[in-house]
Amino acid sequence: MDKMKVAVLGATGMIGQRFIQLLEDHPYFEFGGLYASERSEGKRLGEVLKIRDHRFKPETMDMIIEKLDVKSVASSSRVAFSGLPSETAKDTEVELAKEGLGVFSNASSHRMSLDVPLLIPEVNPEHLDAVKDQSTFANGGFIVTNANCSTTGIAPPLKALNEAFGLDIVTVTTYQAISGAGYPGVPSLDILGNIVPYIGGEEEKIEIEIKKMLGTWDGSFKHANFTMLANCARVPVVDGHLEAMILRLKDDPDVETVIRALEDFPALDLPSAPRQPIIVMREKDRPQPALDVFAGEPDRAQGMAVSVGRVRKEEGWFKMFVLSHNTLRGGSGGSVLNAELAKAKGLL
Amino acid sequence: MDKMKVAVLGATGMIGQRFIQLLEDHPYFEFGGLYASERSEGKRLGEVLKIRDHRFKPETMDMIIEKLDVKSVASSSRVAFSGLPSETAKDTEVELAKEGLGVFSNASSHRMSLDVPLLIPEVNPEHLDAVKDQSTFANGGFIVTNANCSTTGIAPPLKALNEAFGLDIVTVTTYQAISGAGYPGVPSLDILGNIVPYIGGEEEKIEIEIKKMLGTWDGSFKHANFTMLANCARVPVVDGHLEAMILRLKDDPDVETVIRALEDFPALDLPSAPRQPIIVMREKDRPQPALDVFAGEPDRAQGMAVSVGRVRKEEGWFKMFVLSHNTLRGGSGGSVLNAELAKAKGLL
Amino acid sequence: MDKMKVAVLGATGMIGQRFIQLLEDHPYFEFGGLYASERSEGKRLGEVLKIRDHRFKPETMDMIIEKLDVKSVASSSRVAFSGLPSETAKDTEVELAKEGLGVFSNASSHRMSLDVPLLIPEVNPEHLDAVKDQSTFANGGFIVTNANCSTTGIAPPLKALNEAFGLDIVTVTTYQAISGAGYPGVPSLDILGNIVPYIGGEEEKIEIEIKKMLGTWDGSFKHANFTMLANCARVPVVDGHLEAMILRLKDDPDVETVIRALEDFPALDLPSAPRQPIIVMREKDRPQPALDVFAGEPDRAQGMAVSVGRVRKEEGWFKMFVLSHNTLRGGSGGSVLNAELAKAKGLL
Amino acid sequence: MDKMKVAVLGATGMIGQRFIQLLEDHPYFEFGGLYASERSEGKRLGEVLKIRDHRFKPETMDMIIEKLDVKSVASSSRVAFSGLPSETAKDTEVELAKEGLGVFSNASSHRMSLDVPLLIPEVNPEHLDAVKDQSTFANGGFIVTNANCSTTGIAPPLKALNEAFGLDIVTVTTYQAISGAGYPGVPSLDILGNIVPYIGGEEEKIEIEIKKMLGTWDGSFKHANFTMLANCARVPVVDGHLEAMILRLKDDPDVETVIRALEDFPALDLPSAPRQPIIVMREKDRPQPALDVFAGEPDRAQGMAVSVGRVRKEEGWFKMFVLSHNTLRGGSGGSVLNAELAKAKGLL
Repeated sequence: MDKMKVAVLGATGMIGQRFIQLLEDHPYFEFGGLYASERSEGKRLGEVLKIRDHRFKPETMDMIIEKLDVKSVASSSRVAFSGLPSETAKDTEVELAKEGLGVFSNASSHRMSLDVPLLIPEVNPEHLDAVKDQSTFANGGFIVTNANCSTTGIAPPLKALNEAFGLDIVTVTTYQAISGAGYPGVPSLDILGNIVPYIGGEEEKIEIEIKKMLGTWDGSFKHANFTMLANCARVPVVDGHLEAMILRLKDDPDVETVIRALEDFPALDLPSAPRQPIIVMREKDRPQPALDVFAGEPDRAQGMAVSVGRVRKEEGWFKMFVLSHNTLRGGSGGSVLNAELAKAKGLL
Repeated sequence: MDKMKVAVLGATGMIGQRFIQLLEDHPYFEFGGLYASERSEGKRLGEVLKIRDHRFKPETMDMIIEKLDVKSVASSSRVAFSGLPSETAKDTEVELAKEGLGVFSNASSHRMSLDVPLLIPEVNPEHLDAVKDQSTFANGGFIVTNANCSTTGIAPPLKALNEAFGLDIVTVTTYQAISGAGYPGVPSLDILGNIVPYIGGEEEKIEIEIKKMLGTWDGSFKHANFTMLANCARVPVVDGHLEAMILRLKDDPDVETVIRALEDFPALDLPSAPRQPIIVMREKDRPQPALDVFAGEPDRAQGMAVSVGRVRKEEGWFKMFVLSHNTLRGGSGGSVLNAELAKAKGLL
Repeated sequence: MDKMKVAVLGATGMIGQRFIQLLEDHPYFEFGGLYASERSEGKRLGEVLKIRDHRFKPETMDMIIEKLDVKSVASSSRVAFSGLPSETAKDTEVELAKEGLGVFSNASSHRMSLDVPLLIPEVNPEHLDAVKDQSTFANGGFIVTNANCSTTGIAPPLKALNEAFGLDIVTVTTYQAISGAGYPGVPSLDILGNIVPYIGGEEEKIEIEIKKMLGTWDGSFKHANFTMLANCARVPVVDGHLEAMILRLKDDPDVETVIRALEDFPALDLPSAPRQPIIVMREKDRPQPALDVFAGEPDRAQGMAVSVGRVRKEEGWFKMFVLSHNTLRGGSGGSVLNAELAKAKGLL
Repeated sequence: MDKMKVAVLGATGMIGQRFIQLLEDHPYFEFGGLYASERSEGKRLGEVLKIRDHRFKPETMDMIIEKLDVKSVASSSRVAFSGLPSETAKDTEVELAKEGLGVFSNASSHRMSLDVPLLIPEVNPEHLDAVKDQSTFANGGFIVTNANCSTTGIAPPLKALNEAFGLDIVTVTTYQAISGAGYPGVPSLDILGNIVPYIGGEEEKIEIEIKKMLGTWDGSFKHANFTMLANCARVPVVDGHLEAMILRLKDDPDVETVIRALEDFPALDLPSAPRQPIIVMREKDRPQPALDVFAGEPDRAQGMAVSVGRVRKEEGWFKMFVLSHNTLRGGSGGSVLNAELAKAKGLL
């Protein structure tokens, strides 16, 4: 079977390079082109390398970055994976959908739109149907977004808990990695040996996006109903968002029942899906970004499982830590998985 | 007036060296001796220097560390400031009290004892009277402890809020500096570019200590009654514990009323007390450990004020970040202030 | 005596804020104004604070940043301390000199000019006379530059060694702090847990500037003659350039004679001059940026002494490490000291 | 073909866990047992995990650590890979050789012994013959050591240069990763945001070991003859030793000729040998630990190639930066490669 051609938009950024990593050897997709701003036009990927932990093939390192132009992308590819900044993404993604491309985006621009799915395949696969209401769908074009990276990490455990016991009040406090701010992103003078207790718009995104994803689609989106309160901070970690949750459920299960609900969260049969989407760690001091950010089966796509640790119950509340890879599960990997689901559902 | 002789116990550690910094030029106290384990006996302070941000006087740098021995300490000093590890502190501090010394301790060993005050002068000065019930008090000896560093940071704002509005449910999630673990403490391989979501016993200390301090003493301690839930993590920051709180009050004030209650929290007239114990920052991204850990008046003892920032109200809950210097306000500075209060009350 | 009005140019940057720190309470100078680009016009210093280790007075924190404009600066001040980026500095500094101001600059634009002194008062005070050849000098205006921060650190020890024994071959390898790149400067994704073995133009600056400074002025500059070879790298340290030297002298002194030559390097009697400009440490593992960057007398201007450690001799070569504060001694402090020398010599 | 049983000694340390990583799926070797001190006896590998960047197989994570005991090791294995601390290694390794095991060691204890090869297969394979002079060889037992990690990185380029042009004077200044000090190793309070310009014994090891390795074996070791001068420092990097060299050759080649000599350094046909042992990078700011520490072919053993960058010539001297993975190429990977060579030569 011929592979489908895909374009990577924003190929010099952190998200863009994670896309390249995941698509270098993908069963469904192959590169139609790598695109970025005019400034990087004509450069080899190897010259603008930013990913620390993946060894690209020599031929990938030698791929040439092209200038992003809607017509060029449309003529090279059926699918666009977008790691564009929000301001650029907004119009470009619409234009690409009009050209008939399936656009899988990391940008926040269209996430809350009334006909755009905010999709995590294990969490709300039925939301994908919303693309059929998009005006461009008749030509094969549509936009699917993935959630903000810090929302993505907690979405699978919160989905599992909501299904099993009902969420009442959820507080989340984040320890977010610098790669989440893109490149050049956070100045080193701000973050070396420091914590910055503010990430513009992040708390609002968590609070609204989770409710869209845990809600329903039946021609329109109905949001889930519970109290969600977030505090967000940036920490000097390269990759991996750690999130501390203190939450109250409607039911009153014991700790082991909660753990079982997390571990039994169902997996999907897609190439980039982990066999166990939520891994519960029993060690006393885990998960840790440095050790566990690539959680998941060694033979599967890296960093696509979410780790949960230190699940405790106290005075009727539950406490736990959640770790996810913010540019894989919470970024490019999420988009690739969304595209795999779209292909499985016959939308591509 | 002659100054009172004081001993520093654990003079090679992070807490011990902060004591030396604060006592180098103190209006009430002067060094009786610096004490540590046998291993450091005879060394100059300059050789075992660990504090990064204070420039000691040359004559302080040349002070010689002596071997810790109860009789030597008792003969050199009226007061002992203890930065000993808990296992050593437990018996040594009792023996020093028996010798008639006022012991001001950072160790956790005696914090929850029934006649030992867990003291923050601005928060619960009346608890100091408990020392009069100690069996050694007749000879002038007694033990006063200060709270765990992460408890200390949130104690003043929680006291202010409890007085004004009543605490109902408090969740706190911490970003704790490595100096809190002492020296050698946290291995660099564990924390460089990483977060460790576990500090042994820390969450329990926060949850119990705050209730003792916000409770009352009238011959016995009665603990305050509210729900307190803590998640603790270590971050790659040298000094300064940042703590994110999400809490619900019994009353329903607006944000400005809450801020006013924090800013109006009363100060004490003691040499190491800040003129404004709680500083509320209005900037959008503060307080930060690197910029604000030494909050307070430039002409006063460093790092003794607590900073609160990002005070927000949402769905009836309050969110805020609190920063305090863990080895000054939350360590040696707290003990020195306790001793100043004891002196002001005629106990020394 | 009335203090002289001085302007700080580039007041929102790392160098600019160090100027403010040093001038907050200076015996000769007082603020004429703080200037920066239009973007920061009207902001309080407190809002754009970047210095981590200095506590500004409340009234300094409340000073308002003005838009940089040559006429405004000229009308407010007799002296301009420039922390401008090189591209802006080049013309602006010339214009200010034409307006009759003494300009003390950190920028590299004019360093190698034929009538501009590249000045470190302890190293080459006689070079200051070069300003008399500047065309603007008749009106009281002139430009004095200080050296690149990594050149500054090694200049005093190399001067001492050259005077005493003659330099033959000098190799230097640097560990340079991120504050040297200004703000926003180095992206955190580039430097967290990493070393970047390249700083554009830095090696060339070291190699040429040191020869100008160790050379002579007698109406024109004659450069010193020895082999100087530099390797430069950026490290994840906030402040403090550490530099490793391996060098061969023309004479063949023993280690103690070399140490004595360094320790006896003469001091100046100026307000910001350290009483001992070169401090030789005997500890086995010093100097270290975190512990020793503020080397110098506790009652004097901070970070103005240079620390030398681990002086060894092997196979006829000398090895040593040198530490200096790159934005104080190697930046703003150097300029302030230059202005103090100019005042002492009657040029201001 | 049956695989040979091998023991990993020091399995809870940084070196030990790198051995496990490399042997998890090796064509010649399989685990006879994992050994460590009594403290870790009975623990799962997963519980004591320290390696950040490798995902072990689930069955490897479940392997149980045994207590190190010479008889147990001898009965389980033909080969011992030693990541023991030097004090323990000294006697244990001799005892294991007496039991007939091939011992491949990272410890420094036996490196300079008169009949023990200090081996890097690409550099001095002929030295391996020295094991035949060891008293235990008749029974099949012998000791082979690999060099200190910072010596290992520069050995291949220095060998290449010495062969082609003759080494005259070599200065090296290091930026060494914390994993080189083992676990717990460097306290975080010492190295976070800091550089420590001292590593006990390191400079001496570089200066003597390189001469043994670049020398000859013909029944006894004759050391190479050139001037070697080292300055060593620890930096806040997890893995990867960067080393800056400034050196003079006996011949006077141009830069391109030097680069060609490095790139043409011959490879070996062994499973863990990189196809190109020295990779010369042409980018202006490389190699960097974070980006390049795993240099080498993506389908080969990770981190076994050495990267050289910024090769420059100035005043007759050459300047360059060298990067190597200190616990792979400079540690466990070196030992595994040594064992592969021993097997190829029929010694196992």
